[in-house]
Amino acid sequence: MGDDALADRTNVRLTVAYDGGGFHGFAESGGVRTVMGDLRRAVETVTRGPVELTGAGRTDAGVHAWGQVVSGFLPADTDLRRLVRSVNAMCAPEVSIRDAEWTTEEFSARFSATARAYRYTLWNDPAPNPLLAARCWHVPQSLDIDAMNEGAAHLLGEHDFSSFCRRPRPADDAAEVSLVRRLHLARWTRPVATEWGDGLVRFDISGSSFCHQMVRSIVGTLVDVGRGRRRADSLPTTLASRDRNAAGTVAPPTGLVLQSVDYRGERWDA
Amino acid sequence: MGDDALADRTNVRLTVAYDGGGFHGFAESGGVRTVMGDLRRAVETVTRGPVELTGAGRTDAGVHAWGQVVSGFLPADTDLRRLVRSVNAMCAPEVSIRDAEWTTEEFSARFSATARAYRYTLWNDPAPNPLLAARCWHVPQSLDIDAMNEGAAHLLGEHDFSSFCRRPRPADDAAEVSLVRRLHLARWTRPVATEWGDGLVRFDISGSSFCHQMVRSIVGTLVDVGRGRRRADSLPTTLASRDRNAAGTVAPPTGLVLQSVDYRGERWDA
Repeated sequence: MGDDALADRTNVRLTVAYDGGGFHGFAESGGVRTVMGDLRRAVETVTRGPVELTGAGRTDAGVHAWGQVVSGFLPADTDLRRLVRSVNAMCAPEVSIRDAEWTTEEFSARFSATARAYRYTLWNDPAPNPLLAARCWHVPQSLDIDAMNEGAAHLLGEHDFSSFCRRPRPADDAAEVSLVRRLHLARWTRPVATEWGDGLVRFDISGSSFCHQMVRSIVGTLVDVGRGRRRADSLPTTLASRDRNAAGTVAPPTGLVLQSVDYRGERWDA
Repeated sequence: MGDDALADRTNVRLTVAYDGGGFHGFAESGGVRTVMGDLRRAVETVTRGPVELTGAGRTDAGVHAWGQVVSGFLPADTDLRRLVRSVNAMCAPEVSIRDAEWTTEEFSARFSATARAYRYTLWNDPAPNPLLAARCWHVPQSLDIDAMNEGAAHLLGEHDFSSFCRRPRPADDAAEVSLVRRLHLARWTRPVATEWGDGLVRFDISGSSFCHQMVRSIVGTLVDVGRGRRRADSLPTTLASRDRNAAGTVAPPTGLVLQSVDYRGERWDA
């Protein structure tokens, strides 16, 4: 798109929710169905021309979002209320624009983000929960939540998370090669008095950004701590090893939701 | 099954949860997939012989359950822990036995029940919620919850619910023909601070029993009250008319869950 075409365009910020179950991930990729592919095509149907969109987090196949953020330049005369209504009608029930607003030219959903918050849900009961099956990981063994929080505390702050990340391929963007990240929050909770009794367990994690499979790998490792298969005080050693084999298995994508993206404060880079 | 076969059998009570989305209702019916059909076949695989099971509530196609109750006589030497584990492995992720216990010979999941409690979930926001799509009815218009509760209050107690029920066919069981029921609870709430903000609206309703489409017809009518299409004080007239056309449309099954069945106290009959 040339500068002329951009002259009568304005930057938009969309807040997007999706059920990732039927998609091969968020980011567009040739030949497979992705959230961004569906979303972009619906937006283009409304704006009657090509658009380029950027997302805050490239969630994996099967991962869901409540507060994914997407930005891009649209024709300045686009009626945003109509855009949301039309796109939601085209993309329902799997993808939904929750909010749309015009923003500054400098804003990038990806590069302006200062933090991402994810939530992981476990169903922790001997019997599976059919009403939550598409949104959780079923862990039948009893879990020691205190030990899981003790393990999680070792991950807070700035670390090289190589042990918890799928190694980037050499062809990948050089800026992505550092696997140093800063975690602000990593906390397990067991909500009481839910509509399903006390089987629900949640993990809220937020940080500067996350490398590939990092949240699910942390969840898998901490669940091993909760099941007694690994000690909470082994986490510093796991981090220090910078070895993918030192961490536990990768938790399934069904339990993971990109909850929100933060744009306040300064962006942190390793 | 003869008396001899029953001699070494014991009555079991199962608490069953299911996602009704893929089933043509709960009760067995020739040629279509039902929850009871799947459940019975799985139980028979474990007990290696035919069983007869009875359910507390015949939920419609697409309706879910968290606390459906099922009873029936199984060989007395059945290992219930193994039964649950095996059935759940066969029926996952859509059907799950949450609990199994031996009970008295007189117990019938259906005829011993004194009350059934259902919960209906609305997503009340202009944008759909993809993470709740399979479990709710999306109502984009703003709703007056107070008016809906005012309307619901008129339904409490003992009434002929003909206006809210699909008329039984002449061939149906004569005992079912009375459409007089007793409602104990009918209350709308808007939970705050959920993981999705304030768009969730819940309706909890409990009563002696419910006739066909009664909960969904009540929900549809009260949502019309909430949208301002019908007055809260019109409910007594709607009830008195005993005319199916007097009530509103039937709410979709996706939002409905059979939450629990009560066996305490005396059974009430019209």
